Amino acid sequence: MAGGFGTRFWPLSQQNNPKQFLDILGSGESMLQATFRRFEQLCPRENIFIVTGELYADKVRSQIPGLARRQVLCEPTRRNTAPCVAYAASIIASINPQANIIVSPSDHAIFGEHRFLDDLGMALKLVESHDWIVTIGVEPTNPNTKYGYLQFSEKPSLPKMANLHKVKTFTEKPPIEVARQFIASGEFLWNSGIFVWRMPVLRTAYEQYLPKIADKFFTITPAITPAELDNIYAHSEAISIDFGIMEKATNVHVMSASFGWSDVETWDSLYNTCSKDANGNSFVNGNVFAYDTKNCVVNVSPNGIIVLQGLDGYIVTGNDEVVMICKRDQEERIVKFSSDVELFQLKSFKSKK
Amino acid sequence: MAGGFGTRFWPLSQQNNPKQFLDILGSGESMLQATFRRFEQLCPRENIFIVTGELYADKVRSQIPGLARRQVLCEPTRRNTAPCVAYAASIIASINPQANIIVSPSDHAIFGEHRFLDDLGMALKLVESHDWIVTIGVEPTNPNTKYGYLQFSEKPSLPKMANLHKVKTFTEKPPIEVARQFIASGEFLWNSGIFVWRMPVLRTAYEQYLPKIADKFFTITPAITPAELDNIYAHSEAISIDFGIMEKATNVHVMSASFGWSDVETWDSLYNTCSKDANGNSFVNGNVFAYDTKNCVVNVSPNGIIVLQGLDGYIVTGNDEVVMICKRDQEERIVKFSSDVELFQLKSFKSKK
Repeated sequence: MAGGFGTRFWPLSQQNNPKQFLDILGSGESMLQATFRRFEQLCPRENIFIVTGELYADKVRSQIPGLARRQVLCEPTRRNTAPCVAYAASIIASINPQANIIVSPSDHAIFGEHRFLDDLGMALKLVESHDWIVTIGVEPTNPNTKYGYLQFSEKPSLPKMANLHKVKTFTEKPPIEVARQFIASGEFLWNSGIFVWRMPVLRTAYEQYLPKIADKFFTITPAITPAELDNIYAHSEAISIDFGIMEKATNVHVMSASFGWSDVETWDSLYNTCSKDANGNSFVNGNVFAYDTKNCVVNVSPNGIIVLQGLDGYIVTGNDEVVMICKRDQEERIVKFSSDVELFQLKSFKSKK
Repeated sequence: MAGGFGTRFWPLSQQNNPKQFLDILGSGESMLQATFRRFEQLCPRENIFIVTGELYADKVRSQIPGLARRQVLCEPTRRNTAPCVAYAASIIASINPQANIIVSPSDHAIFGEHRFLDDLGMALKLVESHDWIVTIGVEPTNPNTKYGYLQFSEKPSLPKMANLHKVKTFTEKPPIEVARQFIASGEFLWNSGIFVWRMPVLRTAYEQYLPKIADKFFTITPAITPAELDNIYAHSEAISIDFGIMEKATNVHVMSASFGWSDVETWDSLYNTCSKDANGNSFVNGNVFAYDTKNCVVNVSPNGIIVLQGLDGYIVTGNDEVVMICKRDQEERIVKFSSDVELFQLKSFKSKK
């Protein structure tokens, strides 16, 4: 899934260049490229399908050269994740109706790639022989209210797998008090957004919990015309796979991830995720020359040169057009800054015309 | 004179793009363009000669389109201002041996253009009928140790000109205690670096105080070959017109400027020179979006967009390659920052080769 259009990392991320296409972590590859490269080690690359918007299709193809036409699936409109997964699943079903499918976001950070591959490889094996939806859970470290929480049964699902449990409840984005209770109980994991299932199980889940989406989307084949796809999307409800299926399904099992995970949704999570120097600086991307500077996070273009003197606790970022310097504890205001700048850009664009 | 290569405003100013070619003041034109435009109102544009280095000749021509070949004089090496002025004067003498000449830096800020034109127009008239070197003096506002100080006679040089006095002494870059005494005495003006004189007076001054330079440089005509010019410069001493002539000449008269002047040599002088908003910010160039930000000076490219949050007392500047954020009271360290970055750029350039 590579259709996100978040601008939390504005001006680095923009609607026409969202996070999945950026090297947010300073790893030398975009989040999408890193995700693709990881999954290439689990399955042939021609079996990897990327669902995105029309706006991003060229970007996907330029970041991952050599993709066949059918591997990039363009959604005509945004309908959240349930229609997105149904679309891809139906295309995959036309190739192999028994396929094992991993559904994954393309803009998350994974640490410990070997453990990631081990976990996912195991999950694929499990769904071959069980009619389960296997989801990857992450040990929570704080009562984050933006995640989904999976409550798991005490007893492992299989005698020999201590890290696999049946899911009892699924709560998307709980209030803070509830999240605190969840964490205190020790019975909850965060939902990583990675699901593994066999095609017939996926199909049954859709038919049972999202019958309208199933009816329309499972008619899709590679031969569908843009007009037909437009029509299906236009009449589809917008619903997440978490709300639409995971909260209701009774055959969800959660595997506790042995790898490190972050959805890197905020500068704060990036700062916490990335390594820091002795002064608490995390210089993620760009050539930074820092003097008397501490607790800063910098992510500009890899070739960019930034000289900082006398800064404490700032985000420093930018693209070819915009440079932003903002206190780390004020990052929630970036949305406002970006809309102010975009209004200005719109006006200057109009005045030029 | 447009041969300066200062990098005080690094990374905005660089050796290959020094201050005279930049819009340091945010006026919409470079300092050179502003200087040229001012003098165009005093004399025909074909009578304006620009002395610069080979490196900058193209830049001069692109910033001031339509210059004749002879109007851009390239010095093969730097020899300070006395040879520079002699070179230009000799070229001018070959056209008009009686020319009235204004010598002026091209990277100073002038406020009150009409008063500037009045003062210079008057100075031109004065030198037509007097064998004087008329220099423009500026009322000092602080004991700056980087300027030249002109001590003037009490009595005006002419009965009807209260702002024109004979110069008694000329002291270049005095120690701070001396500068303080100068200011306290009320008998001193800063030297603006603008001199007005008639060709024969100029020539006599050179012959008297800088005979070696006069001997060589006054042989120069527009027909000089590059090799001949190289040879003259190679054997010339490097000396400023201030030390070489003004300190010694006995016919220097100073006109107290009725216009505002700044040599804008530092970020601090730029900050003090430019207008500030209610928060003490001076956003000179670039589109600045400031939140909780005060006492900052910003000068980036005019199309650049800068978002600042929570900054107090910083310089924010940059070019296409480098962005710099530095405390205003630390600007003397910029030289070090620039050499650190330039070393890095040199290394990356080498490693690419």
